[in-house]
Amino acid sequence: MLRLFDYLPSGNGYKVRLLLNLLGQPFELVEKDIVKGETRTPEYLAKNANGRIPLLELEDGTFLPESNAILFYLAEGTPFLPEDRLGRARMLQWMFFEQYSHEPNIAVVRFWMEHGGMTPEREAMLPAKRKGGYAALEVMEKHLAEKDWFAGKGLTIADIALYAYTHVAHEGGFDLSDYPAIRTWLDRVAAQPGYVPITQR
Amino acid sequence: MLRLFDYLPSGNGYKVRLLLNLLGQPFELVEKDIVKGETRTPEYLAKNANGRIPLLELEDGTFLPESNAILFYLAEGTPFLPEDRLGRARMLQWMFFEQYSHEPNIAVVRFWMEHGGMTPEREAMLPAKRKGGYAALEVMEKHLAEKDWFAGKGLTIADIALYAYTHVAHEGGFDLSDYPAIRTWLDRVAAQPGYVPITQR
Repeated sequence: MLRLFDYLPSGNGYKVRLLLNLLGQPFELVEKDIVKGETRTPEYLAKNANGRIPLLELEDGTFLPESNAILFYLAEGTPFLPEDRLGRARMLQWMFFEQYSHEPNIAVVRFWMEHGGMTPEREAMLPAKRKGGYAALEVMEKHLAEKDWFAGKGLTIADIALYAYTHVAHEGGFDLSDYPAIRTWLDRVAAQPGYVPITQR
Repeated sequence: MLRLFDYLPSGNGYKVRLLLNLLGQPFELVEKDIVKGETRTPEYLAKNANGRIPLLELEDGTFLPESNAILFYLAEGTPFLPEDRLGRARMLQWMFFEQYSHEPNIAVVRFWMEHGGMTPEREAMLPAKRKGGYAALEVMEKHLAEKDWFAGKGLTIADIALYAYTHVAHEGGFDLSDYPAIRTWLDRVAAQPGYVPITQR
């Protein structure tokens, strides 16, 4: 059986949990508390030298880190990964956008406010993070004002990747009132058969 | 013909230029000076709402942003993209690592020092960026001490993605003396037929 090393509040981990549930794929959840440093032990670093969750252990003992690479691996051969070349590139475009322009702003502020704690250094970085987060939301809103999904004609792993931290953006103080297309898309994702909330083990 | 919107000093842009040259694929280069704001004009934002280079315009006028998504698109069906499922996932693992753990530290510091200019805010962020950059280099060194390439048995777009900012890391003040496996791998990449330097138009 697949084994997922994960931290429940993590949106990066939730991406994988959500896809596995949408696929109806059973898995074993092994929780690691990142705040307590449980992913920086020698034992864990032997599994993932980068010391992060999520980490997927395949049936043969192979370890695969990086949430969006795990999504790609699990989605191959399913409707959640487009079959055409441009569709796959478009999907990856949004997944790299998520890791570069979205997560470091929206997810990081949420982590500070909900789990990691605010410090003077973090307070100083907050305005730039806030600006970057809203800029990412603007790009998403513009796309979703014209299209139902980020790539292809239905839900793909690009939607899952972006959903994870967007649907909890309010926990980082981001206000989605002015983003009606994003809010409609959030409802669209949550209505998928097999959907589970981020709080579900 | 393919058209690449790019800024010559950008490692993200160089990734695409390097792959196109390794593939022997002709393309038109359209230079945009990001320091002068040439990617934030209404005309450019209509091509890429996220206002960044590189941006690839396909033969049919389709625009594709995000360096690593462009690499994936161009490499499909070539030896630079592994054919097996785990190989592709492993390659993407390193490409997401590049955009999340490597580029925001190593590339950003180089940009500040070489092109964007240092400010008091940036000075304050420097120790954290330095620490994050060396942590990424440690992870790479550990991998390359055991393997010649990041994914698969030869050069893939994961190597191209990581090469781009690693080979100019010294321009951001990163010292690679203690990373012998990385230095050997840099030479290995530069010895590929079709290789071009970052300064070549």
